[in-house]
Amino acid sequence: MNASTHIPFARRMDGVPRSFIREILKVAISPDIISFAGGLPNKDLFPLEELHECADLLLSGSDRNILQYANTEGYLPLREQIAERYARKGMVINPNNILITNGSQQGLDLLGKVFINEGDAVLIEEPGYLGAIQAFSIFKPEFCTVPLTPDGIDTEKMKQVVEATHPILAYLIPNFQNPSGISYTEDTRRKVADICRGKSMFVVEDDPYGDIRFSGEPKHSLHHYLPEQTILLGTFSKTVVPAFRMGWIVAPDEVMERLVIAKQAADLHTDYFTQRLLHLYLANYDIDKHIASISKLYGEQAEAMIAAIERHFPAEVQFTRPEGGMFLWLTLPEGQSAMRLFDLAIRENVAFVPGNPFYFGKTDVNTCRLNFSCSNVQDIEIGIRKLGKAIEQLQHKHITI
Amino acid sequence: MNASTHIPFARRMDGVPRSFIREILKVAISPDIISFAGGLPNKDLFPLEELHECADLLLSGSDRNILQYANTEGYLPLREQIAERYARKGMVINPNNILITNGSQQGLDLLGKVFINEGDAVLIEEPGYLGAIQAFSIFKPEFCTVPLTPDGIDTEKMKQVVEATHPILAYLIPNFQNPSGISYTEDTRRKVADICRGKSMFVVEDDPYGDIRFSGEPKHSLHHYLPEQTILLGTFSKTVVPAFRMGWIVAPDEVMERLVIAKQAADLHTDYFTQRLLHLYLANYDIDKHIASISKLYGEQAEAMIAAIERHFPAEVQFTRPEGGMFLWLTLPEGQSAMRLFDLAIRENVAFVPGNPFYFGKTDVNTCRLNFSCSNVQDIEIGIRKLGKAIEQLQHKHITI
Repeated sequence: MNASTHIPFARRMDGVPRSFIREILKVAISPDIISFAGGLPNKDLFPLEELHECADLLLSGSDRNILQYANTEGYLPLREQIAERYARKGMVINPNNILITNGSQQGLDLLGKVFINEGDAVLIEEPGYLGAIQAFSIFKPEFCTVPLTPDGIDTEKMKQVVEATHPILAYLIPNFQNPSGISYTEDTRRKVADICRGKSMFVVEDDPYGDIRFSGEPKHSLHHYLPEQTILLGTFSKTVVPAFRMGWIVAPDEVMERLVIAKQAADLHTDYFTQRLLHLYLANYDIDKHIASISKLYGEQAEAMIAAIERHFPAEVQFTRPEGGMFLWLTLPEGQSAMRLFDLAIRENVAFVPGNPFYFGKTDVNTCRLNFSCSNVQDIEIGIRKLGKAIEQLQHKHITI
Repeated sequence: MNASTHIPFARRMDGVPRSFIREILKVAISPDIISFAGGLPNKDLFPLEELHECADLLLSGSDRNILQYANTEGYLPLREQIAERYARKGMVINPNNILITNGSQQGLDLLGKVFINEGDAVLIEEPGYLGAIQAFSIFKPEFCTVPLTPDGIDTEKMKQVVEATHPILAYLIPNFQNPSGISYTEDTRRKVADICRGKSMFVVEDDPYGDIRFSGEPKHSLHHYLPEQTILLGTFSKTVVPAFRMGWIVAPDEVMERLVIAKQAADLHTDYFTQRLLHLYLANYDIDKHIASISKLYGEQAEAMIAAIERHFPAEVQFTRPEGGMFLWLTLPEGQSAMRLFDLAIRENVAFVPGNPFYFGKTDVNTCRLNFSCSNVQDIEIGIRKLGKAIEQLQHKHITI
């Protein structure tokens, strides 16, 4: 082929956004930078020693099938462990309705394949999770956005959008949403279920952070209010380790059947050795105790970040007070540019993610995502102080221009 | 939702074949059955002890990043090891042009996403690899089949099909093809390159078995003859272990760029812990020696199968004599049904895969795939004798009906 213009690429990739975060992080890799930009769990809490013991146990056995091809659905005892964890939250999930995926990201890809025809409406939150936008984009839906309020998705607007656009999927993160840190109130969850009930659509409840709660009371899953129309996405990336890429989908029988075919075509099955390793870890260790230690640490760090914000930011900068998860959301005064703040912040050696990639068709927004899971309280204090200085410069520039 | 008829599934999944092999294997799981149906590498040769040592080494270090999120492209030192293995075959591959995937099956999915618009022509061999048919089907191409000859793909017919249909991809397995065991001659490879050169298309050379050669001389990759238009798929599933799902794609820069976006949307990255484990295994052990022992065993088993076929099958049953890989291909006399033979064989407690799923629009074929990698020579002798008995019954029935 002579020129790249002749490469017969498919049209479906044309509109898929590159990872803005990935691009932006390239400028934020200097060790001098205090970064609130990432979305990583804190590696200090990875159960390295415990996994070492499990790997040792698993590989000193004589069962060579731990290294063989395996079934597409995933290792049944692992799916039973997942079902059992749901049961303890009062949710009755049959292990046969659980499909092991490569992180919940693959769940999004499989759902896109199984549900989205070009032009179908897909409802998402605004600001919304970039990974879902990327995964679904490939299948060319029409995204319909519904803004978040402090109580979760704006149910009045959601009702209008559902009635006007007939979405086939509503993609929602009710707990400690990425990027905003907002959680749906119990009332919002009930209303979401009422809006969707009986319609030809599914709610996709993505819940990567639900277990990482450090304040407030646990809320019901949307599955509680709308069991037949809720598809659940889960992951061990935030509670055990991300490297394993161990996620899952919970879906009704007919949906599961198609997801399994799509999964088989996509990669036959998820890494079976790691499934067995994770299963052993869950069988031999107290994951709830481990999750409690993660929640405690993230809670301290979130608290430190909020306290520092209150000390160092001008009062007109708004922020969310997440009850769990890994992110907090800043809203600068109207008209101030998060991208410009990013440039100023980098000069102060502090990084965050400007809100831009979490919106559709907005190129200059005044919101910012701050991650608190990966920085200790000292760095949080220093980083937020520096960010406060950058905000001051931004406002100064804003006024003088 | 009241009825499954209301589930708003996407049309793209409608035509995707279920795994016929998966379905058929459900009847072949009895321990009394000698199965030539599977497509598994022989687990007795998995380097369990070596991987145990590597896991121990990896997990006793203090680098917790082995359990963290990682980059989409894959662990660079692992990609360098892959490039180095190509270099020893005289192929110059830049590690930056290698993307780590979840088995080569994911490579097929990503290529489908990046290249196939609905209705695009995709050229495949007949009989062809079921996994590729499944993966590509999701993107709704028009499959154009070209028959195999004992020398590889029929280049005369391939030329006609390429000129008539302008395929965007030609999916080929030049070494020890699945299902046929056939290898392309050097001349066929040269001709394939000549046919495709300069056209707006890529050749996808899938090479899962290339290293497992037990007779004959290694041939050049199609990449040698057509570097700019050849995309390579590789895997460690047959040379190390399948459970890890470690495959890769080699593609030119512009293609790689899109594949990385598609991979990121699909699952962010492949299991990073296992990438590190595999890298350590390749660094610390002699994989060529290991591959030589696999090739030796499979060679002995293939030889035993061919010898048994010559003893127990009627002379009019044709079969291929593979120089490597895991499969051998039977052709029954014209008009005899492989499906009917399957039923008779199961009664004799021996299983294989009838050729049906490897064709398009043929429902009753006279060909069969036999796997020789997973049965020892005693079982091969017994199983082939029983299969010979079933063939006799088939021919008897065939005559009497």
